[in-house]
Amino acid sequence: MKELGTEIFSRRRFVQLGAAAAVTASATYGVASEDESKPHRSMMNVAFEKREPRIAMVGLGGRGTSLLKDLLAADAKIVALCDIVQSKAEDAGVLVVKSGQKQPELFTGSDRIYEKMMDRKDVDFLIIATPWSWHAPMALYGMRSGKDVAVEVPGVTTLEDCWKIVKTSEETGKHCVMLENCCYGYNETLILRMIHSGLFGDLLYGEGAYLHDLREELFSNKGEGLWRRTEHTLHNGNLYPTHGLGPVSNYMGIQRGDRFAYLVSMSTPERGLDDYRKAHLQPNDPRMQERYITGDMNTSLIKTAAGLTITVKHTVSTPHPYDRINQIAGTKGIFQDYPARIYFDGLNQDEAWEPVENTPESKWKKYEHPLWTREGEMARKNGGHGGMDYIMLYRLLECLREGLAPDMDVYDAAAWSSVGPLSEQSLKGGSAPVEFPDFTRGEWKKRNASAIATLA
Amino acid sequence: MKELGTEIFSRRRFVQLGAAAAVTASATYGVASEDESKPHRSMMNVAFEKREPRIAMVGLGGRGTSLLKDLLAADAKIVALCDIVQSKAEDAGVLVVKSGQKQPELFTGSDRIYEKMMDRKDVDFLIIATPWSWHAPMALYGMRSGKDVAVEVPGVTTLEDCWKIVKTSEETGKHCVMLENCCYGYNETLILRMIHSGLFGDLLYGEGAYLHDLREELFSNKGEGLWRRTEHTLHNGNLYPTHGLGPVSNYMGIQRGDRFAYLVSMSTPERGLDDYRKAHLQPNDPRMQERYITGDMNTSLIKTAAGLTITVKHTVSTPHPYDRINQIAGTKGIFQDYPARIYFDGLNQDEAWEPVENTPESKWKKYEHPLWTREGEMARKNGGHGGMDYIMLYRLLECLREGLAPDMDVYDAAAWSSVGPLSEQSLKGGSAPVEFPDFTRGEWKKRNASAIATLA
Repeated sequence: MKELGTEIFSRRRFVQLGAAAAVTASATYGVASEDESKPHRSMMNVAFEKREPRIAMVGLGGRGTSLLKDLLAADAKIVALCDIVQSKAEDAGVLVVKSGQKQPELFTGSDRIYEKMMDRKDVDFLIIATPWSWHAPMALYGMRSGKDVAVEVPGVTTLEDCWKIVKTSEETGKHCVMLENCCYGYNETLILRMIHSGLFGDLLYGEGAYLHDLREELFSNKGEGLWRRTEHTLHNGNLYPTHGLGPVSNYMGIQRGDRFAYLVSMSTPERGLDDYRKAHLQPNDPRMQERYITGDMNTSLIKTAAGLTITVKHTVSTPHPYDRINQIAGTKGIFQDYPARIYFDGLNQDEAWEPVENTPESKWKKYEHPLWTREGEMARKNGGHGGMDYIMLYRLLECLREGLAPDMDVYDAAAWSSVGPLSEQSLKGGSAPVEFPDFTRGEWKKRNASAIATLA
Repeated sequence: MKELGTEIFSRRRFVQLGAAAAVTASATYGVASEDESKPHRSMMNVAFEKREPRIAMVGLGGRGTSLLKDLLAADAKIVALCDIVQSKAEDAGVLVVKSGQKQPELFTGSDRIYEKMMDRKDVDFLIIATPWSWHAPMALYGMRSGKDVAVEVPGVTTLEDCWKIVKTSEETGKHCVMLENCCYGYNETLILRMIHSGLFGDLLYGEGAYLHDLREELFSNKGEGLWRRTEHTLHNGNLYPTHGLGPVSNYMGIQRGDRFAYLVSMSTPERGLDDYRKAHLQPNDPRMQERYITGDMNTSLIKTAAGLTITVKHTVSTPHPYDRINQIAGTKGIFQDYPARIYFDGLNQDEAWEPVENTPESKWKKYEHPLWTREGEMARKNGGHGGMDYIMLYRLLECLREGLAPDMDVYDAAAWSSVGPLSEQSLKGGSAPVEFPDFTRGEWKKRNASAIATLA
């Protein structure tokens, strides 16, 4: 209550926050209030229709193909595949046939061919693993064509699209799940269980990040290099917030008793991509003409309605060992990853971190997540990213097959994705505070934990 | 230039930032402009009068006594000692006599007795290691009585006092040095030299912190427990910013070609001290009536005039292994402490951190700071905090004895200390951006590196 009071106090401030922030507020509120005036049915806790889903996929580059392999390992039924590049669709089709299923129908060759696939009546579920700018139109078309959809991260990249996926999900009664694999990592699920066992006391703060040197990939002539570098010419802010933010949001119960209230953001200048191309490209290379505006490091601070704070960082254009930080702290203890280490009040004499290792002897083994106990071996054998991809898709299929609500719904997709455009707006206002829209319109108070935390 | 443009753009925003921020701006500017209208002589690069300084100390508790031991080990001449508690002054006097010097005059028994000591004509230099609220009045009185002064961290705790020490230093021509020992740590000085050798490329961002579980000390009935807990009933913000911020400021050349432009700040709720006393005090203990308002974790983001960003964190009321983070990153590499680790572009195949160890075999040994090469053995034998206290005082004495300018001047003390009150102001404005006053009035552009970086 005290902290909700604080939130209201803070809200009062925002209307005084001048040009940039005011624009922001009205922009988000404009949509919000317009939206609130409309009747809508919340998609919170809405179960999938129970069935063995017939799955169609669009986007079969590196990421899509990796997802497909995990799906096939989990005996998912793949009925159709779409990629603008024919050979990618064909190669994926070969994998499906090899797995013992019949040849899926291939849709390829043009930008909008995915619509034909999504129109099919014999498809129940769509998986979208295309470049970021295609996520929103494809997810919206998919839901409108009567399919539940799952979209890769970052779900969407504008505040308007955050609202569109929410409204379209509510209007169609179809789910829009974001494929935030990091929420299913071994450590992430272990810590989530330890938090719900009370080991950390009252949570206070957390930190998540995407610190990954992608300079070589961004200048590659294949894969993400074909489109992802362009994002660095369009936006200054956190381009890719959900890997770090998703797990911390689950720890804190965001959209489950708490929600993001407001954010401030700060970026460094851009130097990394300029330096890299100077060292690696010819002076006459057309890419030398691109103008990059994404600051090399973006740091954003999020305040929740309950007063907790989250630090979110993003750099893909500077030398840095891979790190998602994945930190959570409460009144009784703190965990941080890379490497995984933990400290609890009085844990040891010299107030030192203790490593958290995934071994049978680990003192924390009893908190291992049941999904990992059940499927860990399969996950490590098949799964991308140390198995988290397999666990995520296995669990998604479980929810579809058993007719459960998805662990991550459209409100999570919207809230986690909104940090991208909101960080951009804060920067334009000289790091001014920017409010989060309440995509749930109050429903966030009605549940209290991620299903990942509570499932047996 | 481009980034100075950005700064100006941001400045424009501030006047639009509404209630809280506007108050802030006028408050800081009020003083600033009043000040600019006055003639003043900058104390930047002003040398100490060359002599063997006759030193008087006020505050001989745990910290003051530790400093005294280091001073005696460096053959400093101690002529007078002051503490309100007679026994503390007497015990310190015994140490001075034991070192072979004659009995220093003791000033004790009353609040203002330090003024009598500072009035003495046979004192050249004052060292102040008293509770925070006494730093400003003692430093001001000391300078006005014609002495150069050194004050413990955090130098001062209000923006008004930041300006007062600057103006008084300029009016009296006496220095006000803040004893920021962390600027002299082995790793801090090593990394500063590596930065000036160009190993990190163009600097982009850094992070400093004071993450130190002081709950037991804060509730102790002696030492800092007698007064430091009170600060938690008075201010919400970063109470103790300089240990983390000083070294990062030296890396970036703050007041030396760059300066702090603005900050935003965010705090968690306060839970730690409440939980601790509930577990450790009797219900009828008078301390159960205290109301703590300092959020357990404060995170502040600072933007510099050149566009670089600094994250500053503070928690002393939650379980956490000791950590100052001490991170600095540029276009070519990154360093972070606790434990000390480094990564440079292409340093190794798997893009992994390499430990930085202080061993003769260390590949970074050639960057060891000359102060540590010269005095490291003495420092480790005598010095508090792994030797950094000795190195700091040895260097301070060197500057006094050789008639050099101090490494850290009143402008550093004011800028680093101002993060405390500015974080408090930002929080009151709902994390609104708050501008830093330019305590140097433009002089920050006239030098380009900390003397610690360049001395041979």
